[in-house]
Amino acid sequence: MKRIPVAVIGATGLAGQQFLAALGRHPIFDLVAVAASSRSAGKAYRDAIRDEQGASRWFAGGPLPEAFGELIVEDASRLDPAGLGLVFSAVDGEQARELEARIARTTPVVSTASAFRYEDDVPLIVPPVNPDHVELLGIQQRRRGWKGFVAPIPNCTTTGLAITLAPLVRSFGVELALMTSMQAVSGAGRSPGVPALDVVDNVIPYIPKEEEKVASESRKILGTLEGEGIVPHPLAVSCTCTRVAVLDGHTESVFVRLERRASPESLIEALRGFASAPDVQGLPSAPPRWIEVSDDPFRPQPRLDRDAGDGMVTTVGRVREDPALGNGAKYVLVSHNTKMGAAKGAILLAELLHARGWV
Amino acid sequence: MKRIPVAVIGATGLAGQQFLAALGRHPIFDLVAVAASSRSAGKAYRDAIRDEQGASRWFAGGPLPEAFGELIVEDASRLDPAGLGLVFSAVDGEQARELEARIARTTPVVSTASAFRYEDDVPLIVPPVNPDHVELLGIQQRRRGWKGFVAPIPNCTTTGLAITLAPLVRSFGVELALMTSMQAVSGAGRSPGVPALDVVDNVIPYIPKEEEKVASESRKILGTLEGEGIVPHPLAVSCTCTRVAVLDGHTESVFVRLERRASPESLIEALRGFASAPDVQGLPSAPPRWIEVSDDPFRPQPRLDRDAGDGMVTTVGRVREDPALGNGAKYVLVSHNTKMGAAKGAILLAELLHARGWV
Amino acid sequence: MKRIPVAVIGATGLAGQQFLAALGRHPIFDLVAVAASSRSAGKAYRDAIRDEQGASRWFAGGPLPEAFGELIVEDASRLDPAGLGLVFSAVDGEQARELEARIARTTPVVSTASAFRYEDDVPLIVPPVNPDHVELLGIQQRRRGWKGFVAPIPNCTTTGLAITLAPLVRSFGVELALMTSMQAVSGAGRSPGVPALDVVDNVIPYIPKEEEKVASESRKILGTLEGEGIVPHPLAVSCTCTRVAVLDGHTESVFVRLERRASPESLIEALRGFASAPDVQGLPSAPPRWIEVSDDPFRPQPRLDRDAGDGMVTTVGRVREDPALGNGAKYVLVSHNTKMGAAKGAILLAELLHARGWV
Amino acid sequence: MKRIPVAVIGATGLAGQQFLAALGRHPIFDLVAVAASSRSAGKAYRDAIRDEQGASRWFAGGPLPEAFGELIVEDASRLDPAGLGLVFSAVDGEQARELEARIARTTPVVSTASAFRYEDDVPLIVPPVNPDHVELLGIQQRRRGWKGFVAPIPNCTTTGLAITLAPLVRSFGVELALMTSMQAVSGAGRSPGVPALDVVDNVIPYIPKEEEKVASESRKILGTLEGEGIVPHPLAVSCTCTRVAVLDGHTESVFVRLERRASPESLIEALRGFASAPDVQGLPSAPPRWIEVSDDPFRPQPRLDRDAGDGMVTTVGRVREDPALGNGAKYVLVSHNTKMGAAKGAILLAELLHARGWV
Repeated sequence: MKRIPVAVIGATGLAGQQFLAALGRHPIFDLVAVAASSRSAGKAYRDAIRDEQGASRWFAGGPLPEAFGELIVEDASRLDPAGLGLVFSAVDGEQARELEARIARTTPVVSTASAFRYEDDVPLIVPPVNPDHVELLGIQQRRRGWKGFVAPIPNCTTTGLAITLAPLVRSFGVELALMTSMQAVSGAGRSPGVPALDVVDNVIPYIPKEEEKVASESRKILGTLEGEGIVPHPLAVSCTCTRVAVLDGHTESVFVRLERRASPESLIEALRGFASAPDVQGLPSAPPRWIEVSDDPFRPQPRLDRDAGDGMVTTVGRVREDPALGNGAKYVLVSHNTKMGAAKGAILLAELLHARGWV
Repeated sequence: MKRIPVAVIGATGLAGQQFLAALGRHPIFDLVAVAASSRSAGKAYRDAIRDEQGASRWFAGGPLPEAFGELIVEDASRLDPAGLGLVFSAVDGEQARELEARIARTTPVVSTASAFRYEDDVPLIVPPVNPDHVELLGIQQRRRGWKGFVAPIPNCTTTGLAITLAPLVRSFGVELALMTSMQAVSGAGRSPGVPALDVVDNVIPYIPKEEEKVASESRKILGTLEGEGIVPHPLAVSCTCTRVAVLDGHTESVFVRLERRASPESLIEALRGFASAPDVQGLPSAPPRWIEVSDDPFRPQPRLDRDAGDGMVTTVGRVREDPALGNGAKYVLVSHNTKMGAAKGAILLAELLHARGWV
Repeated sequence: MKRIPVAVIGATGLAGQQFLAALGRHPIFDLVAVAASSRSAGKAYRDAIRDEQGASRWFAGGPLPEAFGELIVEDASRLDPAGLGLVFSAVDGEQARELEARIARTTPVVSTASAFRYEDDVPLIVPPVNPDHVELLGIQQRRRGWKGFVAPIPNCTTTGLAITLAPLVRSFGVELALMTSMQAVSGAGRSPGVPALDVVDNVIPYIPKEEEKVASESRKILGTLEGEGIVPHPLAVSCTCTRVAVLDGHTESVFVRLERRASPESLIEALRGFASAPDVQGLPSAPPRWIEVSDDPFRPQPRLDRDAGDGMVTTVGRVREDPALGNGAKYVLVSHNTKMGAAKGAILLAELLHARGWV
Repeated sequence: MKRIPVAVIGATGLAGQQFLAALGRHPIFDLVAVAASSRSAGKAYRDAIRDEQGASRWFAGGPLPEAFGELIVEDASRLDPAGLGLVFSAVDGEQARELEARIARTTPVVSTASAFRYEDDVPLIVPPVNPDHVELLGIQQRRRGWKGFVAPIPNCTTTGLAITLAPLVRSFGVELALMTSMQAVSGAGRSPGVPALDVVDNVIPYIPKEEEKVASESRKILGTLEGEGIVPHPLAVSCTCTRVAVLDGHTESVFVRLERRASPESLIEALRGFASAPDVQGLPSAPPRWIEVSDDPFRPQPRLDRDAGDGMVTTVGRVREDPALGNGAKYVLVSHNTKMGAAKGAILLAELLHARGWV
């Protein structure tokens, strides 16, 4: 099979590096171009990520794939997408809107940025949860006159919540979800990222804009495609998002009120049994199961569980009934914020788009 | 004024050391005896806390008060309370029941242990919240035929929650409180305490027995003394308690459903305005205000706020309405677990008992 | 090829677990028995490592190999070595002497304990450095009348130092090595291990007995087998060993005075070119190179480099001349303390003993 | 006594904030002006340190002194020093040279920046060590035609080393000092400072330019004022500087070769007995002793010892002879990098300059 030529824009940042790490030997996508700011343009990728002292600032796990180091970085603002089958965007907020829109005129864009997430004609897809929302891309193309499209993934804090709520919605109905997150520092990137001075021996109880994103995105992901848009799921979502001294892996403490009472056993059964559509299950980046439930009351722990399923599994533990909320339940989850929650999650979405003929 | 002679039992452990640190120049209590296990008995306190290498294992902040270092450690199981006006107990769970009961036959005991907290005739007092529960001690004495009594303080995780719920109960009524804690490692003591291997780059999502304690204790503290016992407050309380890589200071993310809708401004006003009975306000260890509310959305942080009011203040921030819960609200608090939540909180309670004539 | 049946004693502790993790699919050794204290005896291994709450306390990386979980734990003090080709010992200091001596009467023992390291007839072998010291085992057997023997590996802090000194000794001669270590908490095990309360936001400047061990062991490893014993290398070794908030991987800052002046280039060449005897190079656990030298001045870092070569490689960086010491040099190394420095290093030694016919 | 009006330039950064925190109730210096970049100019100081969200970014310990919050920040490049008796500079490297030179034409400058440290006519003064080097300021004024002068303090990593070497130089002579530092993250400031992503569960073995600074500065501080310049002390100094996950307090492991052999007792006596000139001893910021020596082998620890003497004391421990170096010795020190090593150290120097009539 001929692989599809793709580019990564925003390639030199932490999120961009994670795309390169994950595309090393991808069966479908062939990374042929990388782009970043004009400052990096013209340099070999290997050199573009060196610091003033000449030392490599490669921060993704594992080595930089040899061939990618040789790619000459292009200026993202001038990238010509002709010949590319797909562009992955790891561009930061502000610039994403313009860059992604320009490319989408001709070429599909799968993005980790939030710029388009809340538009009416833009689906927010977590492949195991709402793969059918891809159909909204046709409406997006028609309305905007684009040959390509923009398909963003949700915020890394939303992903694990949405994945664990999905089977509860299906089996018991969910009316309310209250979540407190303990988020990893890698979620803030590296320049500047979270200063050690802030987070060692500390908890930061606020992450700007995060809580609104999680609430709105969860309802959209769990919503229903009707007519020309998504009708958000009616459940209420409320969060407090905090930062802790953890490198990778977001931990979330979740309380839910269900429509129907559920025993801990039936909750665990629903979570463990969560299966996606067969074509989603067969995607190259799909783990055998989307959710693992631990019986160990001391789990999940971000350090021990973030890499489950190569970072694509959401691990759940401490599943309990919660009569305080009526038909309530509570649990803790860990989701890898820079794998399933970022670059690898975006690649999974691109795999879905390919499987369903959009790429 | 002549000071009241007191002893500390369990004096060599981390909690015991904090009693000694806090009793250094106390205006009411005069530490005249320290007791611990038979292993330490007969040694000067200074030597009893040395390790095998002869190095001092004094872990409370500030220096060991000079005079206390000279006290000869007694065997707690044989301590004769004659001549003592009060005994502070920092003994661990199992032994506390027997030791405290023996001493209480003749002498008041103020304890950080959980052994007696859930007995019908034992009040659980946080001085700014429910000072009038001291009256239950008379019933305890009568029923048990004791001349003294046991007055425990709550679990360190309960304290901050109860203090912040109290003004909300008064001003708006509280039906439900859902809390996720991010607790400091000092809460687990030192031998063995929390291994660094568990908590560096990690979150531990479970602290055995903690959640049940917080739920039950909060309702008792906020309850009403009626007839011969406490009628717990009817609010529902549910928690998930986690451990994070923080040295001191428990952070708690709280969601509440109120009886009456409250704006953020009125919530803040109620919290800031929380005042205790005049005699409580005048206790030596009482801070000027029991609750500080921060306007900085990045506060409270355990490292920056735990020492407010010398560790006796609960700092609250991120006060928001929460329509997801109906008449809901949410906030974050930080409370010093080894000061207000342990030794200094117990001394505050002893001051109250003294002020009201029980000691 | 028929694999050699082996046992692990001290199997339930952190070091013992790492033996099990590393023996999962070993081409030469077939783990058929596990032993620990009488408290664990009679339980399936899987159950012996559960805590009071029934939760698994498996702390080695990766899952517990399925089959090992079913092994019934034997009482180490009564273990019958008949039928075993080798016993790995991860027993703690005190008991190691008696247990290992008893087993060695009939059966080879490879040990991570220090009990026998300093005996005249006991070699201290780091396979890439001094494989020929195995010959001393014959003298040990003769003197003690044992059919087996005890072959200990050095302290985890010695290993990286000895490996990096070896090529410098060969190429330039080394007169003096001064080392300051920044050691990981896993080196202290888990019960109790290093309390988080000690090491978060801190450095502990002392590890009892560690400095003497490193000095004495380095000189023995780099020494010469002459007649019936090892003549230690005459270089002077002095250390200060500290503990830092790192999970795995010891970092060591080394200053050396050489017999002959060496440029940074020739130092790097000697380190990179360090090759062991061909049969050592071919051992199953041997990495392609024993020493990697990084050009990045910000490396080696324990988090990024400890797993090089699956934990068997010593990574060196910051190689500089040091005129302050005359013919001086200085560098920094990272070595994985629980892999090359413990269980996996012991397995490597066992592989060498097998290759040379001692097992 | 009328206090001397002073300004702080670079006032909004972390180092600048520490000046403000330390000048709160200073008996000699009266802070009347603050200056920073043009971006902050015109705002009240309190507002200049708010972030985009309006939250205060005050990071120095303790509260911002009330009156200082009202000061209107001036543009440092246009600050008019007329009427000021002294200017404290916390400006970063590049701009310091120009700004400080301009102000020094009329007004004394005491600086934490490195811009002028290595000039022939600029003394590098640690008040307890080399107060007499102040005389070089007269030569500086004469040569440059300045009415004021620039008096820098050394790098924070040099300070503790120089202070502990001073008594050894006096009592035994020192030929060689080899030092490995484990430095706190606060030394790198906050924007960007050290990312948590770099230093959690890690050690960074390199701090650019730090090692050269320490070597050169130590020799200058311990040197002799002769004629029109400082003759550096002939001892050789070599360092490896690393960064660890500690918030404040640099730990340094030091090996020295002395001219004369010294027993541990005599080393400790020399360190403990280290006394400065009487007028230095009487400075407002001087602690009772400059060096504390701990007998506890587990000390000094940065978290426990950095605040000794309100951050002005250097704590030493693990004092041992070191025969490996001939007449050798080794020890560990902790020095507070943002107190004695930065703002408070600069204020101490200003106090000395005032006492000796230079301000």
